Amino acid sequence: MSYRKIINDPVHGFITINDPLIYEILSHPWFQRLRRINQMAMSYLVYPGAVHSRLHHALGAYHLMHNALYELREKGISFTAEEEQAAKIAILLHDVGHGPFSHALESMVVRGLEHETLSLMIMEELNHSLGGKLTMAIEIFRNIYPKKFLHQLISGQLDVDRMDYLTRDSFFSGVIEGMIGCDRIIKMLTVHNGELVVEEKGIYTIEEFLVSRRLMYWQVYQHKTVLSAEMTLVKILERASLLHQRNDKQIAQDDGLSKLLFGNMSALGREDLELFCKLDDSDVISIIKKWRNHPDKVLSILCTALLDRKLLKLRLQNDPITPNELQEKRAAIAHSSSLPLEDAAFLAFTGEAENSLYNPDNERINILFKDGRVRDISQVDSPLIHQNLSHPVKKFYICFYQP
Amino acid sequence: MSYRKIINDPVHGFITINDPLIYEILSHPWFQRLRRINQMAMSYLVYPGAVHSRLHHALGAYHLMHNALYELREKGISFTAEEEQAAKIAILLHDVGHGPFSHALESMVVRGLEHETLSLMIMEELNHSLGGKLTMAIEIFRNIYPKKFLHQLISGQLDVDRMDYLTRDSFFSGVIEGMIGCDRIIKMLTVHNGELVVEEKGIYTIEEFLVSRRLMYWQVYQHKTVLSAEMTLVKILERASLLHQRNDKQIAQDDGLSKLLFGNMSALGREDLELFCKLDDSDVISIIKKWRNHPDKVLSILCTALLDRKLLKLRLQNDPITPNELQEKRAAIAHSSSLPLEDAAFLAFTGEAENSLYNPDNERINILFKDGRVRDISQVDSPLIHQNLSHPVKKFYICFYQP
Amino acid sequence: MSYRKIINDPVHGFITINDPLIYEILSHPWFQRLRRINQMAMSYLVYPGAVHSRLHHALGAYHLMHNALYELREKGISFTAEEEQAAKIAILLHDVGHGPFSHALESMVVRGLEHETLSLMIMEELNHSLGGKLTMAIEIFRNIYPKKFLHQLISGQLDVDRMDYLTRDSFFSGVIEGMIGCDRIIKMLTVHNGELVVEEKGIYTIEEFLVSRRLMYWQVYQHKTVLSAEMTLVKILERASLLHQRNDKQIAQDDGLSKLLFGNMSALGREDLELFCKLDDSDVISIIKKWRNHPDKVLSILCTALLDRKLLKLRLQNDPITPNELQEKRAAIAHSSSLPLEDAAFLAFTGEAENSLYNPDNERINILFKDGRVRDISQVDSPLIHQNLSHPVKKFYICFYQP
Amino acid sequence: MSYRKIINDPVHGFITINDPLIYEILSHPWFQRLRRINQMAMSYLVYPGAVHSRLHHALGAYHLMHNALYELREKGISFTAEEEQAAKIAILLHDVGHGPFSHALESMVVRGLEHETLSLMIMEELNHSLGGKLTMAIEIFRNIYPKKFLHQLISGQLDVDRMDYLTRDSFFSGVIEGMIGCDRIIKMLTVHNGELVVEEKGIYTIEEFLVSRRLMYWQVYQHKTVLSAEMTLVKILERASLLHQRNDKQIAQDDGLSKLLFGNMSALGREDLELFCKLDDSDVISIIKKWRNHPDKVLSILCTALLDRKLLKLRLQNDPITPNELQEKRAAIAHSSSLPLEDAAFLAFTGEAENSLYNPDNERINILFKDGRVRDISQVDSPLIHQNLSHPVKKFYICFYQP
Repeated sequence: MSYRKIINDPVHGFITINDPLIYEILSHPWFQRLRRINQMAMSYLVYPGAVHSRLHHALGAYHLMHNALYELREKGISFTAEEEQAAKIAILLHDVGHGPFSHALESMVVRGLEHETLSLMIMEELNHSLGGKLTMAIEIFRNIYPKKFLHQLISGQLDVDRMDYLTRDSFFSGVIEGMIGCDRIIKMLTVHNGELVVEEKGIYTIEEFLVSRRLMYWQVYQHKTVLSAEMTLVKILERASLLHQRNDKQIAQDDGLSKLLFGNMSALGREDLELFCKLDDSDVISIIKKWRNHPDKVLSILCTALLDRKLLKLRLQNDPITPNELQEKRAAIAHSSSLPLEDAAFLAFTGEAENSLYNPDNERINILFKDGRVRDISQVDSPLIHQNLSHPVKKFYICFYQP
Repeated sequence: MSYRKIINDPVHGFITINDPLIYEILSHPWFQRLRRINQMAMSYLVYPGAVHSRLHHALGAYHLMHNALYELREKGISFTAEEEQAAKIAILLHDVGHGPFSHALESMVVRGLEHETLSLMIMEELNHSLGGKLTMAIEIFRNIYPKKFLHQLISGQLDVDRMDYLTRDSFFSGVIEGMIGCDRIIKMLTVHNGELVVEEKGIYTIEEFLVSRRLMYWQVYQHKTVLSAEMTLVKILERASLLHQRNDKQIAQDDGLSKLLFGNMSALGREDLELFCKLDDSDVISIIKKWRNHPDKVLSILCTALLDRKLLKLRLQNDPITPNELQEKRAAIAHSSSLPLEDAAFLAFTGEAENSLYNPDNERINILFKDGRVRDISQVDSPLIHQNLSHPVKKFYICFYQP
Repeated sequence: MSYRKIINDPVHGFITINDPLIYEILSHPWFQRLRRINQMAMSYLVYPGAVHSRLHHALGAYHLMHNALYELREKGISFTAEEEQAAKIAILLHDVGHGPFSHALESMVVRGLEHETLSLMIMEELNHSLGGKLTMAIEIFRNIYPKKFLHQLISGQLDVDRMDYLTRDSFFSGVIEGMIGCDRIIKMLTVHNGELVVEEKGIYTIEEFLVSRRLMYWQVYQHKTVLSAEMTLVKILERASLLHQRNDKQIAQDDGLSKLLFGNMSALGREDLELFCKLDDSDVISIIKKWRNHPDKVLSILCTALLDRKLLKLRLQNDPITPNELQEKRAAIAHSSSLPLEDAAFLAFTGEAENSLYNPDNERINILFKDGRVRDISQVDSPLIHQNLSHPVKKFYICFYQP
Repeated sequence: MSYRKIINDPVHGFITINDPLIYEILSHPWFQRLRRINQMAMSYLVYPGAVHSRLHHALGAYHLMHNALYELREKGISFTAEEEQAAKIAILLHDVGHGPFSHALESMVVRGLEHETLSLMIMEELNHSLGGKLTMAIEIFRNIYPKKFLHQLISGQLDVDRMDYLTRDSFFSGVIEGMIGCDRIIKMLTVHNGELVVEEKGIYTIEEFLVSRRLMYWQVYQHKTVLSAEMTLVKILERASLLHQRNDKQIAQDDGLSKLLFGNMSALGREDLELFCKLDDSDVISIIKKWRNHPDKVLSILCTALLDRKLLKLRLQNDPITPNELQEKRAAIAHSSSLPLEDAAFLAFTGEAENSLYNPDNERINILFKDGRVRDISQVDSPLIHQNLSHPVKKFYICFYQP
């Protein structure tokens, strides 16, 4: 009773927290920090509504976990109250390792560490301080807990993480074609031989889910303007690192972000983790607002591009960009902006955008047919899925400054 | 000013009528009749919300026509106020030839005449009474008007008819995965060499449109329970016709429906058309409520099945039903219900459900690429569309009474 | 498991039926009949989307009952599984006694009997055939069951019936300002001393609920065009009754509706109840389509007005209509339509439209304050409620034929 | 054509920009800055979805202006294309003078200057740089342009500013009861004697608008937790100012925010305005993250409260807080936290929350009755409005730190 908390969510309605341990986790500064990390990084430069936070997504995924477990229990799947709590905690914390601008700066703020690794480190730290109460949640998160379906609800082709972010990102960006029927998908889930499966009648909804995901990829997540902004953010950090290596005195600030970015870390110690757990988008925005006035012209150009939304041009195409074209662009920029050619490399660059919708090799969506057989969705006789969606689509881009 | 009428639409918001001629058409009893014809026939037996009327759909399509023309004009496509009015009238009346339970009884109430033909006959009758004011609308409807794009907005792969019914049917049935981004599609339309085309950046939305349509087909329009109910309706009329041919005295009622159903029509005269224009769903429901008590057991069983939702079972499968299975079913029913075998044929039957999403042979979705070329969407390098969606999918069903 | 049925609802999402007894009731022809009764009678003549059925509303109210009981149980309120089932059955059947065009013809089809009485009669009949399984549901419905809050959820100022119909009617008519926060209201409910109460923090939501209800009354339910259509329906039946008393031979049809309407019933026998349970909107529409061609000019005018939406004019005002004005209207109609003055009384008439939002005398919304006191909402220091909303608002209208 | 830009908005659908001047304004860094200012300041601490930006609101209000002008023109109200452009520019820039955390820090960042004054200063600066193209927009904004209704659409009881923010705030916070029917309100607007009026049939919608606004005030804008957070923000700046006056060396940073906050400004010079136009929420969050580690205990407590959402308690009540209670709180805090009593005043304080829904003295909602008369809505015979809503409601609060 005393731990009953109701949170308004425009996407799912109301989210209920009715467990003191979950409320304690939710109130922890490391979780509250997620309020200040934008779920969709720079997408708001194209979709002004896409400003929802990582915390909001974590709450939404927790809510879907609640719904999914409720359905499974109604269908006779058995699990204990403790397992339910652990699965809810695991999903609540699955993204706690995201740093500023999350995926856009993945592995950049703390070099080489992906957010899942950081999430696990933070969960273990929390578990320590909570006297081991998160042990089962961590086992589920690491997929070493016997009831596999609990992990599959957190991380799999049809996990509540994806269901929430696709629904939420589609809702806030206003791209309603990306809306998936997550309530229906949840109604179609069941467990067979300990693994999460989808009932046969859910096939069309799964197809639609895959196609909506594809649409969200190319229309939103890999939208050329979003890509340009996010690559600019990456280039800013790369340029700053270079300047730091060149012993630039002004580049580092007296803040946690600088310590992590420019520190000489072989491993991430406990203190560094504490630093990391204080970072959020405002630290990056702040430092960019300062670097905008830095004497290094390249850095200044990149920071201004991002802050004033005078973004670099970006062209996506099916074939690789020719080295020739890249060289020409760089030469032109070097000339027009009076920069050395090596500096122009920060203002004209190429890359790849990839979208693997469904890779049957490492993850599966298992369909439970009415006759009792279980087959992977890739084996379903659906032209939409078979042979096509499984191939990752790769596009190539060139991104360049045009004063 | 005096003809400004605002209609609330839960799907599109507000629909404005601001033209006295359009208001006159809308007020005509032949158009008002569409209020009493369910847009989705028997789908409400599965989706209780799917009870919206043909009139509502016609208004919605009119509204989308208004929006589409507004966009095209903003893009510099030129057409006159008279052409705009004509296109709006044509879309408003495009379905006016639908009879009771529309597509479910297509070509049955008036044998052999499809609703488009009847729509045209009614439009011409109306045109006559309105002193020729609908002439241009009829030319657009018949696709003999020079500006082809006006007709293509009414009838084509991406017409406002489909855009409205997919959106509306998805909305009312609550199948939100079927929701298409019709506002975005409209924003992507333009005209090239007099033909309606879609701008390249709309490709993902078109893909999503095609997939949502596919989902609506199998999840809603061809849902096995819907199919069972609609085929039962067909069998009721077929059985009644047979009884009438056998000179059953009780079968015909003193009403317009009976006259059309059982009359010996070589052609549809003006009086018959008048009769037709008074029919609606209530006539069919009414007669079925009477036939439920008819001494013919088969008719009575079928009518009761529909009224009390004790529907015949229906199984959909990828392969044709074997003649053997059908025969066995019929024999079993004949035995259990003490019926001659030939009567059991009305209580066990097979059929095909087909869904051709996109047939590149007769209709096209033309994409206008940024480089100025126009290609059919089937030639776009999209695994989702190319080679797959174009093949019509056919399923086979057996439907049978199980007391 | 085997009784798990999921129904799509555009308003509440998915509705789950997981109890064989409830599924049996739902499948009963008397309940299925509600599919053919429009929830909002003639409102669809103004709001084309308002075509949802009584059955849909009953399902929605059942769903909200499920949600409300789930919340109460989470808050520690105790009740048994049997009580939960009984409360769900009671709400499912609360409107089963509605006849064609429900409230618009209330007490007209079966003279003098309100739908609650008929619902009870039908529930008892069903209970008989189900071997007493509905006994507790009937006790709750009749408010003789000890746990008062169960009845209050079915019939009270804040029952799930109202919550569903306001939400549903607002949704389908597209009057979004009428949308109430029914999920939030349910979250605010609790039980105190056996009675349903609202937690203090729900006060603003309750206020909004009352105001939205008021808006729905005047903007939708008592909209002048809706009122005109519904009064025309009443006048049609009154006129037909008069003709029947005058021994008109053509007026009665060989159908259940005629038997009930024109029969000489002192009490409603079992057979009559059976007849009643077969009636639906289509019977009324059907007979009106016949009467439209009746030689009685008044009847014919009224039927045509309804079918072709050439409705009588209606003017609402704050003061009573003067007898003078009424007389003048009747005289004018008698003259212009060559009718006797007494017949013109069917084509020009007056009446009252009333809306008592909240009557503190017989029903209460009890608020549970944080300090533990319970007070009626009328005693809350809210200018919105206190002294104002409690006064029923009465308006006066004149309705008249204008050829 | 080349200036046609379509922006996705989850609230209104699509927003179209089709004017190069408007696009230029929208692209200006001073406008883009609004992306980094949260529309609802600290409300996201209660409503996690309430993270939309000022820029998004400005775009939405611009869109509603477009719709309102479209309606008025359809109704025969005349205005030129230039006036339309000017009105759109004025609404786009009406909030450009908001600083970090907008209303929560109103008049604090630049002492004594309200955001309207700053908006005007910025508009004039922009006008200068654009060669006078904004002159008419400024005249409309200042209400010195002859066609009063243009100003009334920007600032009045029923302006598009309020319509957008109520709709948007309700949408993003998920408080659906706060949803107003802004499309319907716009349909009800017209111009009479040069002033904006509402047609009589819109009265219920206006009532609902006023009540929803009231609900949003108390449920969202003045929610006790929101109030606590926003007052904490204010106290942080007050404490920092005090420390600065006491010559604290660490308090000021080398940034624009510090210069404005701690600078000794008699008037806001051009350079200061430039500084202001670079500020956004990230500057405040950044400095608070630094001050959290400041040796001043009070400052550190307040900053931590905000960042980790360990907020001060706040109690709202109808009567003023007694001086006694305040003193006791302060004494207790001083004691428990080992602080001088004067410092405790920053950790326990009182205040008033006020909500004037509709003040008939200075602004009016004029209703145009069918008989041609115009009266203020306060004179309409509506118990909901008359005498009640016009009285501002004032509540009192005490806010205090509880370790």
